[in-house]
Amino acid sequence: MGLVSTAFPPEALLKLRSGNLGICHTRYSTTGFSELQNCQPFVVDTLHGKIAVAHNGELVNALALRRKVMRHGVGLSTSSDSELITQLLALTPPMEERDAPNWVARIKNLMTETPTSYSLLVMYKDVIYAVRDPYGNRPLCIGRVVPVSKLHTSGAGEEDTEGWVVSSESCSFQSIGAKYYREVLPGEIVQISKHGVKSLSVVPRPEGDPPAFCIFEYVYFARPDSIFEGQMVYTVRQRCGRQLAIEAPTDADVVSTVPESATPAALGYAQQSGLPYIEVLCKNRYVGRTFIQPNTRLRQLGVAKKFGALTDNFAGKRVVLIDDSIVRGNTISPIIKLLKEAGATEVHIRVASPPIRYPCYMGINIPTKEELIANRPEFQDIAGYIGAASVKYLTVEGLVSAVQEGIASLKEKDEMITTSNTSGKRVGHCTACLTGKYPVELEW
Amino acid sequence: MGLVSTAFPPEALLKLRSGNLGICHTRYSTTGFSELQNCQPFVVDTLHGKIAVAHNGELVNALALRRKVMRHGVGLSTSSDSELITQLLALTPPMEERDAPNWVARIKNLMTETPTSYSLLVMYKDVIYAVRDPYGNRPLCIGRVVPVSKLHTSGAGEEDTEGWVVSSESCSFQSIGAKYYREVLPGEIVQISKHGVKSLSVVPRPEGDPPAFCIFEYVYFARPDSIFEGQMVYTVRQRCGRQLAIEAPTDADVVSTVPESATPAALGYAQQSGLPYIEVLCKNRYVGRTFIQPNTRLRQLGVAKKFGALTDNFAGKRVVLIDDSIVRGNTISPIIKLLKEAGATEVHIRVASPPIRYPCYMGINIPTKEELIANRPEFQDIAGYIGAASVKYLTVEGLVSAVQEGIASLKEKDEMITTSNTSGKRVGHCTACLTGKYPVELEW
Amino acid sequence: MGLVSTAFPPEALLKLRSGNLGICHTRYSTTGFSELQNCQPFVVDTLHGKIAVAHNGELVNALALRRKVMRHGVGLSTSSDSELITQLLALTPPMEERDAPNWVARIKNLMTETPTSYSLLVMYKDVIYAVRDPYGNRPLCIGRVVPVSKLHTSGAGEEDTEGWVVSSESCSFQSIGAKYYREVLPGEIVQISKHGVKSLSVVPRPEGDPPAFCIFEYVYFARPDSIFEGQMVYTVRQRCGRQLAIEAPTDADVVSTVPESATPAALGYAQQSGLPYIEVLCKNRYVGRTFIQPNTRLRQLGVAKKFGALTDNFAGKRVVLIDDSIVRGNTISPIIKLLKEAGATEVHIRVASPPIRYPCYMGINIPTKEELIANRPEFQDIAGYIGAASVKYLTVEGLVSAVQEGIASLKEKDEMITTSNTSGKRVGHCTACLTGKYPVELEW
Amino acid sequence: MGLVSTAFPPEALLKLRSGNLGICHTRYSTTGFSELQNCQPFVVDTLHGKIAVAHNGELVNALALRRKVMRHGVGLSTSSDSELITQLLALTPPMEERDAPNWVARIKNLMTETPTSYSLLVMYKDVIYAVRDPYGNRPLCIGRVVPVSKLHTSGAGEEDTEGWVVSSESCSFQSIGAKYYREVLPGEIVQISKHGVKSLSVVPRPEGDPPAFCIFEYVYFARPDSIFEGQMVYTVRQRCGRQLAIEAPTDADVVSTVPESATPAALGYAQQSGLPYIEVLCKNRYVGRTFIQPNTRLRQLGVAKKFGALTDNFAGKRVVLIDDSIVRGNTISPIIKLLKEAGATEVHIRVASPPIRYPCYMGINIPTKEELIANRPEFQDIAGYIGAASVKYLTVEGLVSAVQEGIASLKEKDEMITTSNTSGKRVGHCTACLTGKYPVELEW
Repeated sequence: MGLVSTAFPPEALLKLRSGNLGICHTRYSTTGFSELQNCQPFVVDTLHGKIAVAHNGELVNALALRRKVMRHGVGLSTSSDSELITQLLALTPPMEERDAPNWVARIKNLMTETPTSYSLLVMYKDVIYAVRDPYGNRPLCIGRVVPVSKLHTSGAGEEDTEGWVVSSESCSFQSIGAKYYREVLPGEIVQISKHGVKSLSVVPRPEGDPPAFCIFEYVYFARPDSIFEGQMVYTVRQRCGRQLAIEAPTDADVVSTVPESATPAALGYAQQSGLPYIEVLCKNRYVGRTFIQPNTRLRQLGVAKKFGALTDNFAGKRVVLIDDSIVRGNTISPIIKLLKEAGATEVHIRVASPPIRYPCYMGINIPTKEELIANRPEFQDIAGYIGAASVKYLTVEGLVSAVQEGIASLKEKDEMITTSNTSGKRVGHCTACLTGKYPVELEW
Repeated sequence: MGLVSTAFPPEALLKLRSGNLGICHTRYSTTGFSELQNCQPFVVDTLHGKIAVAHNGELVNALALRRKVMRHGVGLSTSSDSELITQLLALTPPMEERDAPNWVARIKNLMTETPTSYSLLVMYKDVIYAVRDPYGNRPLCIGRVVPVSKLHTSGAGEEDTEGWVVSSESCSFQSIGAKYYREVLPGEIVQISKHGVKSLSVVPRPEGDPPAFCIFEYVYFARPDSIFEGQMVYTVRQRCGRQLAIEAPTDADVVSTVPESATPAALGYAQQSGLPYIEVLCKNRYVGRTFIQPNTRLRQLGVAKKFGALTDNFAGKRVVLIDDSIVRGNTISPIIKLLKEAGATEVHIRVASPPIRYPCYMGINIPTKEELIANRPEFQDIAGYIGAASVKYLTVEGLVSAVQEGIASLKEKDEMITTSNTSGKRVGHCTACLTGKYPVELEW
Repeated sequence: MGLVSTAFPPEALLKLRSGNLGICHTRYSTTGFSELQNCQPFVVDTLHGKIAVAHNGELVNALALRRKVMRHGVGLSTSSDSELITQLLALTPPMEERDAPNWVARIKNLMTETPTSYSLLVMYKDVIYAVRDPYGNRPLCIGRVVPVSKLHTSGAGEEDTEGWVVSSESCSFQSIGAKYYREVLPGEIVQISKHGVKSLSVVPRPEGDPPAFCIFEYVYFARPDSIFEGQMVYTVRQRCGRQLAIEAPTDADVVSTVPESATPAALGYAQQSGLPYIEVLCKNRYVGRTFIQPNTRLRQLGVAKKFGALTDNFAGKRVVLIDDSIVRGNTISPIIKLLKEAGATEVHIRVASPPIRYPCYMGINIPTKEELIANRPEFQDIAGYIGAASVKYLTVEGLVSAVQEGIASLKEKDEMITTSNTSGKRVGHCTACLTGKYPVELEW
Repeated sequence: MGLVSTAFPPEALLKLRSGNLGICHTRYSTTGFSELQNCQPFVVDTLHGKIAVAHNGELVNALALRRKVMRHGVGLSTSSDSELITQLLALTPPMEERDAPNWVARIKNLMTETPTSYSLLVMYKDVIYAVRDPYGNRPLCIGRVVPVSKLHTSGAGEEDTEGWVVSSESCSFQSIGAKYYREVLPGEIVQISKHGVKSLSVVPRPEGDPPAFCIFEYVYFARPDSIFEGQMVYTVRQRCGRQLAIEAPTDADVVSTVPESATPAALGYAQQSGLPYIEVLCKNRYVGRTFIQPNTRLRQLGVAKKFGALTDNFAGKRVVLIDDSIVRGNTISPIIKLLKEAGATEVHIRVASPPIRYPCYMGINIPTKEELIANRPEFQDIAGYIGAASVKYLTVEGLVSAVQEGIASLKEKDEMITTSNTSGKRVGHCTACLTGKYPVELEW
């Protein structure tokens, strides 16, 4: 439990036996699921030896699958989908399996049992299978480990690669000396072994269904230097800011950001609108999370402990403040008060994504419908409620076009993706939390 | 991991929701099996809800049962017998089970699959089943929780009991305000619910097989105030000391003990032999287990850090030193040197149990055959090897009679045990580690 | 030891008895002085009761003062100047002291013994004295605690203040609901008690000496929202960036920052030069400080673990990268390599402060002369050494003018400072680390 | 803070630089004085370099000495006598001291300022001074470190000793491979250096005053294998038990002990009285000190969690239970209840020391007068109050004779003590807590 650097101190790492292959998993612990026993990878012993499974996502039909597995007489020791997937893989020897286990057939069988959402790593003996669900809801990409000697030279066409890595986000590659290679395609099963990377199969979606990559990875979750669908997340966020400036222009003096995640959108808004970009807040890095607040006074100070106001930059000015998303509406309100008290004459809020209105059943932890500001009565006069001069959101169409614009240009040049045998539409995103339209029908 | 008081600090206990029923498990962590994931109780979710299992012992046919379970398609996530038992209970709905699960039938079925060794607690909803294997190899007994108001009065015949507890050792009852009630019989399934304690069934052993309660519980493992088979462990150890004085008398001045476990045997030896009982060593309570020994000098000091010599008590005298068992022979040797250096003229070792020569496959962690002093060449001249004037062990016959003598006298008066429907002999003990005769045939 | 939030967990704070007065101290632990016993405040019991002293700075004549104190027969239990100051205050009852201690006279006496550098808080019974050395080398300022009810309204002219706080940096005020009031002047002794804030005295500098406030507080140490000499640090840094653009213009496509401390200078440079401001790096927040690097490969990756390259923002472009200071030259070199490998065609380094060449004896931890890049042979071809297309530094004159420009404008309007009875020049800064000219003669 | 093995883990010890000389200190932390800053040794820097002081005891005139030191202008940073002694040593350069410090003269000077109680180790450069106050109130003895090669042989008369150690209790010697050499005499200053052990001086007591070694070291504090005044503590305790059997015989069936400290007295009582010695209680080693007791029920169980009753040993019998001392009377009462509930027909309490009635001002933490059972009304019918059949204490005369009897016999043979130049009586003990007669007049 905890950050990787505390959960795996040097002593623990030194105890690892040397090897060529491994899988691991980190996740943001969301309330109710953060238990040690749910930690991944999930490892079980089978007739054929051990398999290990790491899983990102949430099975939309998990309850039905749990019942199926338990009806077979298997007791499930955790509440995690990861154990469920592992037991499903152990449970279902496909027809063609004789003496040796056919894990690929078992994985394909699993993919017919559950449409989404999962990105998987399955390790067995000396092979890792990287799997992405047919809708491509969760990201998964492949990196090539470059020899250190070549790291700082032009590395094109080199032969002596040293290995391969798979990750949800490509930003992790640089920090271990690997380079982005390509995404695992929706429905694809990729095998990684000492013989390198090999695409084994692409399991198709139902006829006519587009892919459904989570659009909120672009908006909020991913690190800005990650690459999805051939484009850098930072660039998409900057385009969202430009689109927002077109959809919601403001009569103001300066544009700024709620640091740090909204900065690309704020710079995009500034470029498109022609207003100067300034900084209005600096982060207090030493805010202790567990710091006690022994009296009402300190509790009421709230966000003032987290951000310092750069007063002289905006005193007497009208500020457009860009945020990446407003979910509950709790944090933006004290920031506005802070700016106004420090001398801003008006604070206009521009949000670089549409309001969230619906729950996610595919692995993202979103507050309940009742907590979402967009579903509450206060949303009718949201500007008045949070103390802003005005509040405007990016439209769903604006967001989708800002995201897909970069993919279009890229499809022409990227051979690999166009050769994908996925039927039907090749581009599509899950906007369920914004629109209520889920990529597959939900069972209950 | 760790002692109960550190593994469950106040904060952790306060988080427990209030309830009427619970099972738990502590165990001495033996190398190779001490992993967090092997911690008990093992809890799994089944079609009928959760069951929890705590297990003491070691299944003699565990490997065959693992293969059987895995052949059914169940992946096993730990190496523990406890998970294996839990999955076996989940796996096998007996014929007579319709809608509700019939856990008693499942437990009986389990008992036909594995003869020994296990004492089990199985919790399901509002019932706990306490189960002891047909050979009664591991202990299990029942205590009655007495109302505090009656704790310090004569508690005979009271009606307003407040609950029931089950434990491997009766010594745990006093410390929570419970009183010893009776043992779970070999093969018995006892149900504990809001309706009290109810004996459901006694699964018989194969025709002619005697019970096989581990005799080393008397010799070494149990706390001296625990009660097995109607007799206090301390009393048995004292009888072993008396028997040892008969079998191996010594021409010496004083009798003493290796504190603290050998003290009852030493007092028994002193009473029988007429030699005065004295103390020769005092324990250093503050020996740090993790204390570093930065140089050869301190490493060589060994046992001198653990015991202080009470020099004036024995200087110039011939000492009979009683030990409860000598397993590897590593610790007794430096103690003898310490006593002789402090002035003892002779040190005679008398061991209140026979030499251990064979491995245990029923849950007790015994060193390998090669490590056991009784199997090594040095055993031929054990006295010379450890520096003693003489060394003598209790015989197997002497030990068995010291143990069974107390049971014999008790069978007359104890109604409960005599009404047991166990076939064949009612008294018998496992002496496999001493004799190599195992209670059941071992499969490999 | 450690961050405030870990050193003072909730349990510790709840044990504090409620009171109206307190002093504390945090400091960046520099090698060799980070010991628990050097923690401040230093508290000693005297004939008159306890006094507590917190000290920021370093006494230029500490060694001579230690000898003096020890010659009097006082044993010093730590190596800290704080204990030395405390014992000096205990040691020297001035003439005019009769029965009650005259701490102000003792403090004045101390100020005649040592010219700089110290900002002090001295607590005795129900009074705190805030003291700044005559050269004003270390910062110290006063804040007014505002009633919470008034915090978010226009707070002008309110009467019902609730208290006073003193701090090295004004940025700390906002986070506890206080507002910047004024600086403690060089040489000033301010008394804080239930009667409020009262200036007791201003001890003068030697005739003709200007003040010597550490210019590196502006350049590097202070948080950007802090206020010194009436101006916001961020604004000074931005002016340094503008000045740098004038002194060292560049033929390039984009301007960027080494996040996050150089951002104000980078924005200033962009504004002055007209080049567009972009982001080239994003910080990896989860870099574990103690993370082991089990092989040469990972060790060599260095800075690539700390920053992610925002490739698409600068690929194919000439980048001007602004840094706030280059001390050892170790970190900028891999950043340049990272940017060039990610596609930058040229990387020009512009540093918003002059090269550091001399040691500081007034409390700032500067590497040894030999470690400073400006004193090493590689400095002759610094651009070649670190792989940059060009490297230019701000001049000392440019830095001083960027700093003092804001003070000049402010002197007109700030009544308080102009009424200071400090003799001679009212504005001056210590630039010793840049020029080797120390504000006082150094004794050895 | 904490046990040595946790306060100094292996990592900490490995950081110690190798050396030939060292002092350290452990102490039982008594409420109100257990603070990190009071940890010893106390080290201060003086004009002549560092001195370190470890101190056992409590200065009877500490307050007067603190005032004296503070009047000189020294601030005291802790409440410990150890700092006070250190500053006194730093403060008082005696007449004969010229260039080099004369620590022996300073120590003698200190000994004229305070009569008792202190055993001191003073380390300066390459010398350690071991000092015991003129009354010898606290113990201090010297051990000789034996080469390991000779440890287990007869070590008489060897020449190649490897070093010397000093300790409050001789029991510590064996565990590091040292042998008891002799006590530091009351008032003696012993120098330990590379030249070995040398007695420098014996500071006399006032004419006619006997020594005043704390008699409670024999009764309660010391480990039984320690040697004071030439006799083993265990032997003294056994003599106390014999004396108690003479003073307070009992009509009973068996004699037993409250384990473990009262065992020697119980064995002595059994030998003298002829009653058989048995064990009635076994200790529960795993009682967690911090274990929470979540309900009234468990709180009321009290001592039943700490001791298990060895029922069969005493059911139906009259028990004489020996305790070493009864201070508050809180723990003996539930033990008696436990024994009676388990079947003892009568429980007679015999205490191997007299009742404590007076406070100690010489370093021993004794409850307040009000808490001492001997000063409370319940003491009139103490047997009824604690539920015993009878309660009897050893007399002061009995205790003193049991202690001094062994010294008398030993004075004949021990050359060293008889050559001591201490004036007046050579044997004497402090019985202040029992009699109210303090060895020196107390100042307030």
